[in-house]
Amino acid sequence: MKLWGGRFETGPSEVFERFGRSLDFDKILIDVDLRGSAAHARGLRKIGILSEGECRRLVEALEGLREEARDDAFFNNAAEEDVHTVVIRKLKELVGAELADKIHTGRSRNDQVSLDVRLWLRERIDEGRRLLTGLMEELLRLAGKYPRAIIPGYTHTRRAQPVLWPHYLLAYFEMFSRDCERLGEARKRVNVMPLGSGALAGSGFPVDREMIARELGFEAVTRNSMDASGDRDFMLDFEHAANLVMLHLSRLAEDWILYTGEEYGWMDLGDGVTSGSSMMPQKRNPDSLELIRGKAGRVFGNYLALLVTMKGLPMTYNRDMQEDKEPLFDVARQMLASLEMARAVVETASLKEEAARAAAEESWAVATDLADALARKGMPFHRAHKVVGRLVLESVREGKSAKDWSGESLAAFAPEFTADMAALLDPGEGLKTREIVGGTGPKAVAAALEEAQARLKQMKC
Amino acid sequence: MKLWGGRFETGPSEVFERFGRSLDFDKILIDVDLRGSAAHARGLRKIGILSEGECRRLVEALEGLREEARDDAFFNNAAEEDVHTVVIRKLKELVGAELADKIHTGRSRNDQVSLDVRLWLRERIDEGRRLLTGLMEELLRLAGKYPRAIIPGYTHTRRAQPVLWPHYLLAYFEMFSRDCERLGEARKRVNVMPLGSGALAGSGFPVDREMIARELGFEAVTRNSMDASGDRDFMLDFEHAANLVMLHLSRLAEDWILYTGEEYGWMDLGDGVTSGSSMMPQKRNPDSLELIRGKAGRVFGNYLALLVTMKGLPMTYNRDMQEDKEPLFDVARQMLASLEMARAVVETASLKEEAARAAAEESWAVATDLADALARKGMPFHRAHKVVGRLVLESVREGKSAKDWSGESLAAFAPEFTADMAALLDPGEGLKTREIVGGTGPKAVAAALEEAQARLKQMKC
Amino acid sequence: MKLWGGRFETGPSEVFERFGRSLDFDKILIDVDLRGSAAHARGLRKIGILSEGECRRLVEALEGLREEARDDAFFNNAAEEDVHTVVIRKLKELVGAELADKIHTGRSRNDQVSLDVRLWLRERIDEGRRLLTGLMEELLRLAGKYPRAIIPGYTHTRRAQPVLWPHYLLAYFEMFSRDCERLGEARKRVNVMPLGSGALAGSGFPVDREMIARELGFEAVTRNSMDASGDRDFMLDFEHAANLVMLHLSRLAEDWILYTGEEYGWMDLGDGVTSGSSMMPQKRNPDSLELIRGKAGRVFGNYLALLVTMKGLPMTYNRDMQEDKEPLFDVARQMLASLEMARAVVETASLKEEAARAAAEESWAVATDLADALARKGMPFHRAHKVVGRLVLESVREGKSAKDWSGESLAAFAPEFTADMAALLDPGEGLKTREIVGGTGPKAVAAALEEAQARLKQMKC
Amino acid sequence: MKLWGGRFETGPSEVFERFGRSLDFDKILIDVDLRGSAAHARGLRKIGILSEGECRRLVEALEGLREEARDDAFFNNAAEEDVHTVVIRKLKELVGAELADKIHTGRSRNDQVSLDVRLWLRERIDEGRRLLTGLMEELLRLAGKYPRAIIPGYTHTRRAQPVLWPHYLLAYFEMFSRDCERLGEARKRVNVMPLGSGALAGSGFPVDREMIARELGFEAVTRNSMDASGDRDFMLDFEHAANLVMLHLSRLAEDWILYTGEEYGWMDLGDGVTSGSSMMPQKRNPDSLELIRGKAGRVFGNYLALLVTMKGLPMTYNRDMQEDKEPLFDVARQMLASLEMARAVVETASLKEEAARAAAEESWAVATDLADALARKGMPFHRAHKVVGRLVLESVREGKSAKDWSGESLAAFAPEFTADMAALLDPGEGLKTREIVGGTGPKAVAAALEEAQARLKQMKC
Repeated sequence: MKLWGGRFETGPSEVFERFGRSLDFDKILIDVDLRGSAAHARGLRKIGILSEGECRRLVEALEGLREEARDDAFFNNAAEEDVHTVVIRKLKELVGAELADKIHTGRSRNDQVSLDVRLWLRERIDEGRRLLTGLMEELLRLAGKYPRAIIPGYTHTRRAQPVLWPHYLLAYFEMFSRDCERLGEARKRVNVMPLGSGALAGSGFPVDREMIARELGFEAVTRNSMDASGDRDFMLDFEHAANLVMLHLSRLAEDWILYTGEEYGWMDLGDGVTSGSSMMPQKRNPDSLELIRGKAGRVFGNYLALLVTMKGLPMTYNRDMQEDKEPLFDVARQMLASLEMARAVVETASLKEEAARAAAEESWAVATDLADALARKGMPFHRAHKVVGRLVLESVREGKSAKDWSGESLAAFAPEFTADMAALLDPGEGLKTREIVGGTGPKAVAAALEEAQARLKQMKC
Repeated sequence: MKLWGGRFETGPSEVFERFGRSLDFDKILIDVDLRGSAAHARGLRKIGILSEGECRRLVEALEGLREEARDDAFFNNAAEEDVHTVVIRKLKELVGAELADKIHTGRSRNDQVSLDVRLWLRERIDEGRRLLTGLMEELLRLAGKYPRAIIPGYTHTRRAQPVLWPHYLLAYFEMFSRDCERLGEARKRVNVMPLGSGALAGSGFPVDREMIARELGFEAVTRNSMDASGDRDFMLDFEHAANLVMLHLSRLAEDWILYTGEEYGWMDLGDGVTSGSSMMPQKRNPDSLELIRGKAGRVFGNYLALLVTMKGLPMTYNRDMQEDKEPLFDVARQMLASLEMARAVVETASLKEEAARAAAEESWAVATDLADALARKGMPFHRAHKVVGRLVLESVREGKSAKDWSGESLAAFAPEFTADMAALLDPGEGLKTREIVGGTGPKAVAAALEEAQARLKQMKC
Repeated sequence: MKLWGGRFETGPSEVFERFGRSLDFDKILIDVDLRGSAAHARGLRKIGILSEGECRRLVEALEGLREEARDDAFFNNAAEEDVHTVVIRKLKELVGAELADKIHTGRSRNDQVSLDVRLWLRERIDEGRRLLTGLMEELLRLAGKYPRAIIPGYTHTRRAQPVLWPHYLLAYFEMFSRDCERLGEARKRVNVMPLGSGALAGSGFPVDREMIARELGFEAVTRNSMDASGDRDFMLDFEHAANLVMLHLSRLAEDWILYTGEEYGWMDLGDGVTSGSSMMPQKRNPDSLELIRGKAGRVFGNYLALLVTMKGLPMTYNRDMQEDKEPLFDVARQMLASLEMARAVVETASLKEEAARAAAEESWAVATDLADALARKGMPFHRAHKVVGRLVLESVREGKSAKDWSGESLAAFAPEFTADMAALLDPGEGLKTREIVGGTGPKAVAAALEEAQARLKQMKC
Repeated sequence: MKLWGGRFETGPSEVFERFGRSLDFDKILIDVDLRGSAAHARGLRKIGILSEGECRRLVEALEGLREEARDDAFFNNAAEEDVHTVVIRKLKELVGAELADKIHTGRSRNDQVSLDVRLWLRERIDEGRRLLTGLMEELLRLAGKYPRAIIPGYTHTRRAQPVLWPHYLLAYFEMFSRDCERLGEARKRVNVMPLGSGALAGSGFPVDREMIARELGFEAVTRNSMDASGDRDFMLDFEHAANLVMLHLSRLAEDWILYTGEEYGWMDLGDGVTSGSSMMPQKRNPDSLELIRGKAGRVFGNYLALLVTMKGLPMTYNRDMQEDKEPLFDVARQMLASLEMARAVVETASLKEEAARAAAEESWAVATDLADALARKGMPFHRAHKVVGRLVLESVREGKSAKDWSGESLAAFAPEFTADMAALLDPGEGLKTREIVGGTGPKAVAAALEEAQARLKQMKC
């Protein structure tokens, strides 16, 4: 069954029918499609296209189909090209062709698809934000578990300076917090009601668009019918937000793949999120994290796909735009699954406090603390840096580490070193000199942790 | 001159020095770098690292360099690796090495670069928004020039329904309006002050970050030093916003390349924005629009470049991130130039009202109006669609167009056609049935135009 | 059932199992997996790991499963994580666990997957080349149908010079010819046998890799086990080739969407490959071409996805690489479907010879012929270009077209015009001056058509 | 100066001139442009458009300009839009306008640009292949320096199995070997002569295209003028090849960033390719490798940019295509610089043999050797895997490593362990069981090294 045909001499070829078929993937929209149609029916009732009774019959039939569609068998043997034609067939069976046909009044297919996708995507965004805040909560829990633990902070994949474990986790908290904000901004542009745009010129029926918007929970209605019919910005906004979620998760994955490996060895993951090898009996691989990291590439590719498909398309709708759906659905699926997986990983993660602290004590990660101390005493920083650089070189040559130096030996090395500076050879001491807003000083971190808790509470809905 | 070296036995190889050199492109940051350093100097003054006099001398020297840097010769023969080391050399010449060296206190290179880029990008965003609102203003002017002109609206690059010229232009107004909003959201995340983050652990000096933020016009300070030192989200947010600006411009370009071509022929561009051919004497090509469309690909590629570079990087800073700059600078340059070019094109654009209306009268673009009319009289829409479809097929077979039909001949074709429906064979009549919010009805469009004018006034800063 | 576990205290969590599951998409590999396993069994027989009888039982069981797997029900209720574990379960049912377990000897999962994908991809490439040559054949047929038809050739979407219809189609023939070559190059790198690489260090069993390669039709064996286990180049080579196929198809689609539209109107497509609209009764949209064009974006995105996923991965295999499959499968599916669709479109395409010629006569597309003629008579080309440019401008101002000029009026315009040059106002005449290799002269085109026929014959397998 | 204009009433606006200007980047083509023009002049001589004397004067002038262009001052104060118009101006100064103007005969700008870029790119490819083979040579040298050294081989960033150092390096040799092949395939499609295609219809002058091709070293001439004028495949082929070069380099970079870090610590890099930090005195960062890895993203982005720009462009040339150049130039520049840098890094790299071997002895990397041994004795592999898995778990629980086990204790653990199997607890022994083609057995690796040497000799030109 086609929704057009009057002006054609022959129908679509079999190759073309197969090529354009979208039911396999757009059936995911079934529930929102039925809800959207019910709202449209009420809109048609209000302007007298449907009688009270007709409207009731249609809405009841649509509600029945929602029930039926909970069962996977709903689409068995459906030969239709898309989810919408399946619905029309079933509707005709339930209320007769005459009444079912009226549902098309004042609504274009394009209208309807846009409405469906917006409804569907709004739910995915809400799910994404729930998963994000759940992950953030778990990060704060893990931070609170080792509140004073010291770990090596890295730049260039090299030990840089000691930092507090909660400080490290709060860095990710900030990233995910921006992701939440960004998803919220995307949601705002998703949550606009397009119905009434017609094919491109606006509906020929004076439907009350605001009423339909209210009924379906939309915050606003689209302002221009031509824009609405050719717009995919709201998908791209969501997909950009998903890109950054995946980017952040990929970095967390990379960190933890390293930290839990044999070489770093100062974190651990539970058996439940690691895998073995079919060949190598000793293996215990961080597959869950690798998959998250790998999926980032895929999500990025999907954003690009839509962007490229839309580029240079003339106004308004073009069929190319049907290719928006599979990539969009995949982005949502991968992002939601990755967030869920990440949370499960965080739940099993543990810090090996001793090993982490030992790592922070090696590699002269305290060097900056010494240089800063000299600078605080008045030495130009650039000179202090050189002095400590020479100390490190000497130390490396002699096979010593920071702990092997004392106040005396420091002073012998350079007279500006005062006795109290030797305390800074212990990583825990240097931290205390970084009580700046956003710094890793113990008080600053405790305050940041508290602020994060409060912020998270506000974010959750 | 290197800002490090104490712990190295030999310096960088010549190949490596060349490979890592960024002066050719980061010199664009010279002005913001100098302003940032002045603010940092005042911060050091406040915590006593610099005396009042030292601070004054530094700030005066930095101001002098800002003046000097307005001349292109500023970087002549500079052999330094980046803009920051050029500044240090010049500063030493002006205030002596001892004092110049103090400027490094409590600030990392990473800190400084992040500050510079945020300042620079904030200005580009503001410039982008000015150009965007300028373009929108020009679109409204062009809309107002032909307020009642009727043009064919397209879907699938096929005439679909007649629409009003201002309605068409307002579709782009909506897109650019979203772009403005999106740039504003990006700006919010750009406009956060990172100084004080140190290399990753927070500065070892209690600088008043809020004071520096206020002085430089930032709305907030970054909350976590590790996050701040590894963060490029704010660039990606801007680049996503630029992607959508370019996407919208590419569609406008495509439209107008078609509309002004020999085949469509119902719009025209000025000589000043078209080109000839070195071989074909008759050519008058829409090169300005083609270049805009072509640049979209490049901007997209740059976003991808940064996203890919950041993916899977471990915390916090990694040198890979230096590769953020050239793509970012190119995005800003291409987007700003394209907006400026687009505005210049719109200024020369004209509508050939007669030709446009003639095009809207052909190809049975009024068919939907007829079907809607039948549906308003109670015929189920799907049936109405079929009736009109057959009418169109008949008409095509007979070589007729819509204008060749009368009320009588319609009625003969299908009895449901009432006499008054023949009026709808004139595209101007059908428009009046689309007075829905967002529709192309004359009153709806006039109201939308007025609302857009008001909204634009609010957007402009 | 897991193929590992001895060293684990607990199994994978339910979230992780779901997250890492690939059966939904890798079941597409069932047939090649079974064939690969049979070859591996023969390899194990040769080195005595399997007895003659054991080998026979295994191979027969595998063959039986191939038969069974032709039915979709094969995977019903399979709870396994991937296609390989389903096979092992079924194999155990058929030959017992003891024998089935031996099939893992000397082979890693990674080995096996690489083998499977290479076999599968080789078949897709061959299918792709068949579809490509089929499409090329159809293009030559369509060229031969209107051998002397003249159409406007375009640059900048503006009429540039008249060209012969077959010349235009041969441009696409050349593109697709390069695609065939490129797929052949990709095939060469796909068609290398990886089995025997073990997990990364090479198999611990002296399997005769060359024998297995021969049996499965591979041209060579991989040269380094670590490279083999981390290599996805062969997929990227294929995906790049697919990108260019889609790029070329997208350009053909764009051309024909324009040429068959109301404005250009000098080509037509059959009803069977066009669609109507559910709202607008008159519509006849080129959806098949739009979908092809739209799918290009998606294919590009998939290439990027794999490239990004692989970037920066340490040696050798990482689980990220499992994310290669869905994008790869999608690339193959979209490319093959698009080629099939394109061929079906070409089959229905027709040229409206009169309209095409009329278009070629307008817009002064013959201007270059006049300028060339002047240059052949000794006038510096740049001057000739200016002369004709002024002629065109004059003609446009007076509302004339090329046909309105005569030898006399030309001469009056500029004395260098000789009487015979007026013949060039007819587009058919100018063509004859372009009998250069690769040019649109009638003889050159006829020769090119013949050469293309011969080349195509050689390409087909 | 414009090369067109006769048919225009006014010239391009200042905004448009700035927007379309390409001189800043296309001046890189100056040398190939001059060489191409000289060949074209000789072609014009052959068909009598130029006299012997005119041809000589032009060629001499062009040669003189080549000399002059070696000096950077060549383009000082050039206000032209592109390199070609600069050349024409200078040519006019040297030979007079009358003669200079003749050089445009039978050649379009598009023709000329295509020729230039193909010549330029051919040289970059040759340079790339030289750098690649140089890098491969260096890898073989580094392999030969520690021919029997054992290192841990990794999968999932976890120690997997011991491998020989040369075996590991040969994996990269294979990747770069494919890159060489791929660049060769791209070169084949780059090295085709387009001149004579005119704007799109073929030149109106019977130039001897084969002669020009021979003179400029091209292997063939383009077969269809419309294809030639709209073709960018050859650039994309090159850019795809560059993508894979960068992909491989990014993986080498990742490996070595890890292996030379404090945690892995079994490789070292020279001071000359590492950097310090302006803040942290102890830092010694692998910046050279990080930059290489980071540049991969940028190169990928450039490929995408061109692909996207070309997608859906109608035949033949469109000005969008001017946007091909900057990304292309950047790809070549980044790839060549990265190859040069990588070679310099390899030159300074050293293996810490003891540390590497120690790492290979830990983490039960020999487990597979034990399982294989059991399987060789007849135990089904899957069972052998489980047995060794339990051994590992037991060992981990008891805090033992592989070395802590003896033949006796193994046998006590599982009776199938025979006394000789204890030898496999030494990683050096297991290697000997992997003497398969492509495996890490000492003989296999020695043979592979020899084969690689021979192959490399053949590759170098």
